[in-house]
Amino acid sequence: MLHLLGIDAGGTSTRAALLTSDGTCLGVGRGGRGNPVSDGEAAAAQAIGAAITGALAQAPHVPPSDIAAVTIAMAGGSAAGMADEWLRPTLVALGIAASPQVEPDLLAMFASGTHEPDGYGLVAGTGSTAVRVRAGEVDLTADGLGWLLGDNGSGFWIGHQVARAAALELDGRGPATTLTPAVLAMLEIDADDQPDVNGRTAALARLVALVYRESPVRLAALAPLAFADPDDAVAAGIIEAAVTALAGLVLDVALPGLPGPLVVGGGVATQARVHESVVAAVRAGGMTGPVHRVDDGLVGAGVLALRRAGVTVDESTFHRLVETTTAARNR
Amino acid sequence: MLHLLGIDAGGTSTRAALLTSDGTCLGVGRGGRGNPVSDGEAAAAQAIGAAITGALAQAPHVPPSDIAAVTIAMAGGSAAGMADEWLRPTLVALGIAASPQVEPDLLAMFASGTHEPDGYGLVAGTGSTAVRVRAGEVDLTADGLGWLLGDNGSGFWIGHQVARAAALELDGRGPATTLTPAVLAMLEIDADDQPDVNGRTAALARLVALVYRESPVRLAALAPLAFADPDDAVAAGIIEAAVTALAGLVLDVALPGLPGPLVVGGGVATQARVHESVVAAVRAGGMTGPVHRVDDGLVGAGVLALRRAGVTVDESTFHRLVETTTAARNR
Repeated sequence: MLHLLGIDAGGTSTRAALLTSDGTCLGVGRGGRGNPVSDGEAAAAQAIGAAITGALAQAPHVPPSDIAAVTIAMAGGSAAGMADEWLRPTLVALGIAASPQVEPDLLAMFASGTHEPDGYGLVAGTGSTAVRVRAGEVDLTADGLGWLLGDNGSGFWIGHQVARAAALELDGRGPATTLTPAVLAMLEIDADDQPDVNGRTAALARLVALVYRESPVRLAALAPLAFADPDDAVAAGIIEAAVTALAGLVLDVALPGLPGPLVVGGGVATQARVHESVVAAVRAGGMTGPVHRVDDGLVGAGVLALRRAGVTVDESTFHRLVETTTAARNR
Repeated sequence: MLHLLGIDAGGTSTRAALLTSDGTCLGVGRGGRGNPVSDGEAAAAQAIGAAITGALAQAPHVPPSDIAAVTIAMAGGSAAGMADEWLRPTLVALGIAASPQVEPDLLAMFASGTHEPDGYGLVAGTGSTAVRVRAGEVDLTADGLGWLLGDNGSGFWIGHQVARAAALELDGRGPATTLTPAVLAMLEIDADDQPDVNGRTAALARLVALVYRESPVRLAALAPLAFADPDDAVAAGIIEAAVTALAGLVLDVALPGLPGPLVVGGGVATQARVHESVVAAVRAGGMTGPVHRVDDGLVGAGVLALRRAGVTVDESTFHRLVETTTAARNR
């Protein structure tokens, strides 16, 4: 029987699924950060190798030489052509002769939620991106421009607003918010209100010093604070603005004749509060198709692997893939 | 006669004025970046030394040993106590025995525009800060929290909005604006609209790559583009939002019984379009005192030097200082 590998190589972690051509997942393995652009080719190859090794370990009866195709979903399209170069030695060392094929990570995320060839994807984690998918390919991408040029409503964006709200209150110019003590506690800053030579509190001076010492993207770590106190008006305002931005992003790629489905992924967009509000907002914007929430792009990497091998992924194949992948993950 | 040095040590350049105790400026000299926190103590000491040398060269009859006091206006209050340590060797090498005294740069900016002991200062260049001054000291500081935590309406803020407006249009989601070709031209990006693998134009991909390669603060260099086309609605909206932020910052430090004066400095706030609108907005907010525009904090460093030496700076002394400093600058 034909065997395939579908791999979801992300900036946080990497997952690999070993599949048969009827959509049965035989094993799932995990590795570290797997993006060659942000993490380096050597680290990415190692992470992907570790994930493949883990997947193969769950199906010891499958010889690696039987694997006919390796499909890797990852961000950074320009590295696509080169995967054969930086990843092939790792595959050969594992006994796999097939050439790796790279697919967009957002397409895999979309295909993790539906076997339909057309629809929309929204991913909001540290960054935020929406895609329109047609005929099984990415037709249009919106945002995903990073924290400095875009990514409204993303984890960075929310964390940034949280930090600014705390700084504004400490500077005596913003409304009182429970975000302020929460930020100070997370950064281990004493809530010292002794003014310094400029009439600024010691806590604010310390916040400024700490924030500029770290990489700006680290502000995304403050995003969960926005969800901590549902009664805080400032936090609620930040979440509401994030929801508006994310729903707007989906509607920006929407076409009148294509009602969905919409697949939603990423740590921010799948938060219950955000998810429900985004769904309500895109419904109000005229999007009537089903909405699916996904954890990552692993199932979709499997869908793409099957399709690239010439297998038509119909509803029953898709459900088999989802169920067996979930079972293998939990083994 | 008593001789004094007033020095305005900034993150871009440094200026020194040699004064007599009646407020006559005998010479002005210039040096490079003079902030010990951002530029390092050695570089700051060298810049300040060069500025002093230039000022002394305009008044060869004054022996350096006659200089009774050295007052340095600069940002970063915490380095104040240490100036005696890192700057003294430079002063001694120039034949100056007096100890350096550090004053807040914003106080010197304020005192460059008025001899009054009470009022407000607004500085908006790369960053933005407002101060309330009472009894000749900084009573309250607002913002100046840097590009990540504050500085709304600053040069960075405007440049950031310009970059985002261009990215939004190139991403197919924002209104057409003449900012887009202007940004591409400044960054020497071809306006290539060929879509890449994600349906994104080559110009946008290049913009993203370039912006993240540089330090974020470099976006301040795009701020002048917002002023280039007065008919562009997007640019006008950015300037309007900046004006609202800057006027709001002044009103945040305003007290009902203290109508001014307001002293305005910095490359953004002194732009005619910004200045006039900010003045109109603070007038509408109830601030009735006079408004003065200043180029830098050199005159104010002189005012502070005179005051620290026990000289009362009245209106005639102040005007003498302004006129003779201007004359010495132009020599």
